Amino acid sequence: MTGSPPDISSDARTLMARLDELGRVSTDPGRLNRQPYTAAHRQAIELVAGWMQAAGMATRVDAIGNLIGRYEGEDPAAPVVLIGSHLDTVVDAGRYDGALGVLAGVQVVAALHDGGERLPFPVEVVAFCDEEGVRFPTTFLGSKAICGTLDPGVLELPDGAGVTVGAALRAFGGDPDALASVAYPPGSLRAFLEVHIEQGPVLEAEDRPLGIVTAIQGQSRLAVVLDGMAGHAGTVPMGHRRDALAGAAEIALLVERRCSAAPDLVGTVGRLEVLPGAVNVIPGRAMLTLDIRSPSDLVRGQAVAELVQAIHGIAAARGLGCTVAREHDQPANVCAPRLQRVLAQAMRAEGVPVKYLPSGAGHDAMAMAAICPTAMLFVRCGGGISHNPLESMTLPDADLALRVLLRALRLLALPKAKP
Amino acid sequence: MTGSPPDISSDARTLMARLDELGRVSTDPGRLNRQPYTAAHRQAIELVAGWMQAAGMATRVDAIGNLIGRYEGEDPAAPVVLIGSHLDTVVDAGRYDGALGVLAGVQVVAALHDGGERLPFPVEVVAFCDEEGVRFPTTFLGSKAICGTLDPGVLELPDGAGVTVGAALRAFGGDPDALASVAYPPGSLRAFLEVHIEQGPVLEAEDRPLGIVTAIQGQSRLAVVLDGMAGHAGTVPMGHRRDALAGAAEIALLVERRCSAAPDLVGTVGRLEVLPGAVNVIPGRAMLTLDIRSPSDLVRGQAVAELVQAIHGIAAARGLGCTVAREHDQPANVCAPRLQRVLAQAMRAEGVPVKYLPSGAGHDAMAMAAICPTAMLFVRCGGGISHNPLESMTLPDADLALRVLLRALRLLALPKAKP
Repeated sequence: MTGSPPDISSDARTLMARLDELGRVSTDPGRLNRQPYTAAHRQAIELVAGWMQAAGMATRVDAIGNLIGRYEGEDPAAPVVLIGSHLDTVVDAGRYDGALGVLAGVQVVAALHDGGERLPFPVEVVAFCDEEGVRFPTTFLGSKAICGTLDPGVLELPDGAGVTVGAALRAFGGDPDALASVAYPPGSLRAFLEVHIEQGPVLEAEDRPLGIVTAIQGQSRLAVVLDGMAGHAGTVPMGHRRDALAGAAEIALLVERRCSAAPDLVGTVGRLEVLPGAVNVIPGRAMLTLDIRSPSDLVRGQAVAELVQAIHGIAAARGLGCTVAREHDQPANVCAPRLQRVLAQAMRAEGVPVKYLPSGAGHDAMAMAAICPTAMLFVRCGGGISHNPLESMTLPDADLALRVLLRALRLLALPKAKP
Repeated sequence: MTGSPPDISSDARTLMARLDELGRVSTDPGRLNRQPYTAAHRQAIELVAGWMQAAGMATRVDAIGNLIGRYEGEDPAAPVVLIGSHLDTVVDAGRYDGALGVLAGVQVVAALHDGGERLPFPVEVVAFCDEEGVRFPTTFLGSKAICGTLDPGVLELPDGAGVTVGAALRAFGGDPDALASVAYPPGSLRAFLEVHIEQGPVLEAEDRPLGIVTAIQGQSRLAVVLDGMAGHAGTVPMGHRRDALAGAAEIALLVERRCSAAPDLVGTVGRLEVLPGAVNVIPGRAMLTLDIRSPSDLVRGQAVAELVQAIHGIAAARGLGCTVAREHDQPANVCAPRLQRVLAQAMRAEGVPVKYLPSGAGHDAMAMAAICPTAMLFVRCGGGISHNPLESMTLPDADLALRVLLRALRLLALPKAKP
């Protein structure tokens, strides 16, 4: 993306201004905090619904609290292309995570509307009510309800103040008893497209504005406990020690080395606690966590199996007791190859070099994959920073994202590109 | 120590029984906890003073609360050979740490007394009031006062209940204004001998009952802070990470490797804290401590210098910010070579193979070295366990310790063995 700067469309300027405006709709003064079923959520829905209507869309809020705008197609009965992301945020959030996917959808429909252009299929833009899972101990309330995969039991889950999902939803004007009305019938969705900031450093490091997501990574979480023997740091010679921390250190470096050796694999030791934790006592116990992710379940499964075996080997060699608990296993979510190809074709047509990358974080597209092909377009963000007020995205990148998304819609309108 | 079991003297049986009895003198029911200037301390003094008197000693309690028994010499003006250790304990202590050094002294004097044997010099047995530093934030109250090296400022230090050393001492019947009366005049002590359980696993591992302490190890404490970049465990590829924990792990293994490579060196990473410490976040900060000890200040100094340089190298290679604070440096305390030789001669004469080893923990002998030559005789303990009710020592080992200590006293009585 060197050379003369591209012409920036007024659509991109509008998008950036709206992201700023929506980013000020918050429960807290001075920082962005927008939780589902709050006054800020209501205000955000009203703001975005107004923009949808100005773009020629009919709007509605469904029974779970999703805002949906519909831009009619030449064939109103044709399966819908759904574009969107979520309106909720983490606490002290940035203004792009979630909001970009919603407002990019609004903006491309506005472009169609302004040009009097109608596609063969209806285009809907959705602003999901909950993706982050900050207020309630659950995620994807909105996208799961649309897929018909939301467990009604989650309606009983309370927030920190003891208000359940169901009660909060009802107070918001939703209807927890009408979840069935939210679900899209099988076959009614042709595709789900989500534009999102990368939330990682890859695109920036490679100087690329956009990337096509190959898969949302699968994830394994493990908890390791090592038991050695606490002892006096002065009186126990090195050869007599069973130092739990030294074993944990070997494991941490093993995870780093093993996961660096495969291109599509990341591994993190995020927690490490050492007991008793005194400067003059040899650690008798160490507890650590492993977080292993890959877009390939095969790569991840093989890495986890090897790591578990090697961890037991390290412990045995050091005379340490060792337990490895496998706490969580989530398979990878592969994005639809045909939709990936459509995005690649759109990028090439806009002069953007094609880049594929996995998504390390979870997204609504994961839930949506239950009922339709999904695709995600990542936009470069500053410093890989996300979930932070310093989240950033440039105007030229926003412009390219809109151009690629609009072109992808038009490619989907061509008979041969049907995914 | 294979072959037929040695004859066990009745002195050794008495010693073990007295260690059991003294081990029941405690503030807490059901566990040993004897802090300076408590009723338990008073009761212990009375018990031990009675044993001293039965061994022909004149007893006194000095102004800081040390109990001292004196067995007169042929020349009452000759410099004194002082034997002893401390009466205070940690909380939930074992019965040998400290008490053994006091009661072994009483027992060998009892042997002299029973045989009507008088040495050319007076022998005194001291039961120091405070060595562990559990009640007050200071250690070696008794031995420092005897050396005249006690800072009077420590009298103002409070315990957990706000009672100062001075107030507690006064209530105990001591006299904080008479510290000068406690100090032994220069030249009045010929030697200080301390018998102590090893508090480490070396003698047991080598199947040796006794060891001669070469030096009380010097110690360096360092605090290392590594600053990397916290990040999403899923979105940041391995090559883009600046993982503070991975750097800390490398350092922990470096400390282990470097300190295992020298015979007279131990190194411990006892504390390691990781921030933010979440399973799905790459650690942005790690804080760890290093405890490096050696009986040789040269070996320790060289190891610390190399480690500090290597730590900065590890941090630089990983792009981590790094600070290394040197928090504490205590030189080694070498035991008097001539007294070590006397102990070795006594061991050989008793058929005990000679073993030299450093002391990893601090002892009253460290303080006593300020005014006289010091030596320490270590007795094998079970499992290297100390500061724990499971502390143990065998009757045959106690017997050998008494034989060696008594013989060492007699060797000191020979003109040529004068240290």
